[in-house]
Amino acid sequence: MREVYAAGVGITSFTRLDYPLSEIAAYSGMMAMKDSGLTQADHLYVANMGGCRLNHQSGLASAVVDTLSLCPAGAELIENGPASGASAIKQGYMAVASGLHDVVMVIGAERMREVNNLDATDFVATLSHPLAEYIYGVTLPSLAAMFTRLYMEKYGVTSRHLAMVAIKNQDNALLNPFAHLHQKITMEGIMDSEDAMTNNPYVSEPLRFFDCCPISDGGACLILASADVMKKIKKPMVRLAGVGQATDSHAVHERENPTDLLAVRKAAQESLKMAGIKPSDVNVAELHDAFTILEIAESEEVGFFKKGEGHRALERGETKIGGKIPINTSGGLKGKGHPVGATGVGQAHEIVLQLRGEAKKRQVKDARVGFTCNFGGFGNNVVCLTFVREN
Amino acid sequence: MREVYAAGVGITSFTRLDYPLSEIAAYSGMMAMKDSGLTQADHLYVANMGGCRLNHQSGLASAVVDTLSLCPAGAELIENGPASGASAIKQGYMAVASGLHDVVMVIGAERMREVNNLDATDFVATLSHPLAEYIYGVTLPSLAAMFTRLYMEKYGVTSRHLAMVAIKNQDNALLNPFAHLHQKITMEGIMDSEDAMTNNPYVSEPLRFFDCCPISDGGACLILASADVMKKIKKPMVRLAGVGQATDSHAVHERENPTDLLAVRKAAQESLKMAGIKPSDVNVAELHDAFTILEIAESEEVGFFKKGEGHRALERGETKIGGKIPINTSGGLKGKGHPVGATGVGQAHEIVLQLRGEAKKRQVKDARVGFTCNFGGFGNNVVCLTFVREN
Repeated sequence: MREVYAAGVGITSFTRLDYPLSEIAAYSGMMAMKDSGLTQADHLYVANMGGCRLNHQSGLASAVVDTLSLCPAGAELIENGPASGASAIKQGYMAVASGLHDVVMVIGAERMREVNNLDATDFVATLSHPLAEYIYGVTLPSLAAMFTRLYMEKYGVTSRHLAMVAIKNQDNALLNPFAHLHQKITMEGIMDSEDAMTNNPYVSEPLRFFDCCPISDGGACLILASADVMKKIKKPMVRLAGVGQATDSHAVHERENPTDLLAVRKAAQESLKMAGIKPSDVNVAELHDAFTILEIAESEEVGFFKKGEGHRALERGETKIGGKIPINTSGGLKGKGHPVGATGVGQAHEIVLQLRGEAKKRQVKDARVGFTCNFGGFGNNVVCLTFVREN
Repeated sequence: MREVYAAGVGITSFTRLDYPLSEIAAYSGMMAMKDSGLTQADHLYVANMGGCRLNHQSGLASAVVDTLSLCPAGAELIENGPASGASAIKQGYMAVASGLHDVVMVIGAERMREVNNLDATDFVATLSHPLAEYIYGVTLPSLAAMFTRLYMEKYGVTSRHLAMVAIKNQDNALLNPFAHLHQKITMEGIMDSEDAMTNNPYVSEPLRFFDCCPISDGGACLILASADVMKKIKKPMVRLAGVGQATDSHAVHERENPTDLLAVRKAAQESLKMAGIKPSDVNVAELHDAFTILEIAESEEVGFFKKGEGHRALERGETKIGGKIPINTSGGLKGKGHPVGATGVGQAHEIVLQLRGEAKKRQVKDARVGFTCNFGGFGNNVVCLTFVREN
């Protein structure tokens, strides 16, 4: 198989965007074209979860390939719940690695704020088990809340640890002009003050408002290319060195140990092994913190910390910018936002900037190896990517 | 790249199926496993267009991979409108050809009859251009009707030619136990008799009821595998020898010549060239006859007949079983049915049976080369596959 490189990246603000879904997607694509200097692509993948339901748009990839004047290039939409973005990157990887295509554009996009919050919550809940979870009213916040409670009891994680994740990631988001939340929060304001319960009410106990990512619109793009193409465009050589994916039982209650995220563990191992990288070699990581607990749990499953010790590392500041392994420098889903189809591509966008040394105020010094974890369902389908800076 | 083979095929009846979408998909997968003798797969692709909107099911691939006990194998949903099935097969091809996976299961499934016909028509219309077509009330039958009218004026196609396609394909469907329509129709009954207008009313003039495919539920599966795997399972060596894809402008009225289906032409050429096959070498083909006119137009664009002469070949019986190039021996979308996500995989299912000599009463004698055309949007994203029997 051929080696595969990040030739260009682009992103829209993650926020409320009152443009058609296809335009949001295309805009991020144009930004990535501009970044790469490329004006054509052999194939397009579009990651999206809800266009058909939320935006009356199916065949989205065909719409975007035309908007970007890429016809007759082929195009498909890839859906893997909130992990759609990294799944689409995996397809792009295969297309270039196999030699079938030289330049593949991967765009993730979602427009969720057109509907109200309840509809958005129901929409996301459709990725739970249709017969064992969804019909009983399970939502993603409720699954995450049950997971959090078990984690608290088993490992001693407290509400204050969860708040530390939120504060760290919203601090990082303040350094990212494309992030959804530009709001400084403090332990005093969201946990300790008299009006903390008003500022930060329970969404699904023990999860509070600031433990949950916002509902965002947005698009992000990663252009993948072969080594030959990279020679021509003269961008820094950031290689997509590892791609790992694993699934777990669809219904969360069927897992032998519901605090284990086996699909994260396996996908991370597969991705790092393919890249020849140890977890301790990773310099910067974007983990899927749709809920604050997930950043802690994933930081353990990926192998940055021992199981049950992620919250201790968090306390010690090891996951901050400047710490041992900075996590979610972009702000993460929590601070940057979570337009579901765009999220995995947005994670890759951040890592490419970091490995190029273009992350400005949030730059991790000497970052050479970056990692992303994109978490589908409630951990039932996870895709992890490892990027390595070569030159 | 490695060579890629059809290791197994499975299908459900295309009809109304009152089972959850994930079960329909899984059933076809189990049938293909049984056919191949394989009990595991390294990866799963699920082609589906409307689960999120019609069936309250997103993350469908994660549901199916668990239902089939394939975890931790990775899984994604592929959507490319009505061409989702062949698009998913293309991803499976890349996964095996690249060496990333040895056995890849490709399932197409759709459950459309849960909603009423108007909702289903609106749902399919969402693949038209959101700003230039959909908001003005365009539907797929109305686009097909305008296309038909132009074709009639330009090439002398008549309503009787359209009826010939319907009669031929429903005759073929009578020979296929999995087909949706088991109903013998005649020129007398649908065109000439006194009650023909009652039997066969206009849907969107000049298209009549029997010019349009039914709305179907169904699932189909194709298991793709490397040559090494094929040696173990001892199935006939049917190779996926050519994969072609092309896009065209999203809004139909923007095409320079709206009676040309350029994406069909390019995708077919690419697929046949990759396989080293001339159109005249093809022994059996499944074309995307969602509307009768499309079989005629595609038979020309693929290169079986000259442009504007497909209806003449039809008159001469050249596309019947026993004719020069039998088209839609399965019954096609018209007779077998059109569960959109399943259709492209269903086409491959028929071709594999034909090349194995397992198509029973509808068997094309000595079929060695088979071809499928899966038509997305109104011709804006087309995937063509060429299969060759090796032993």
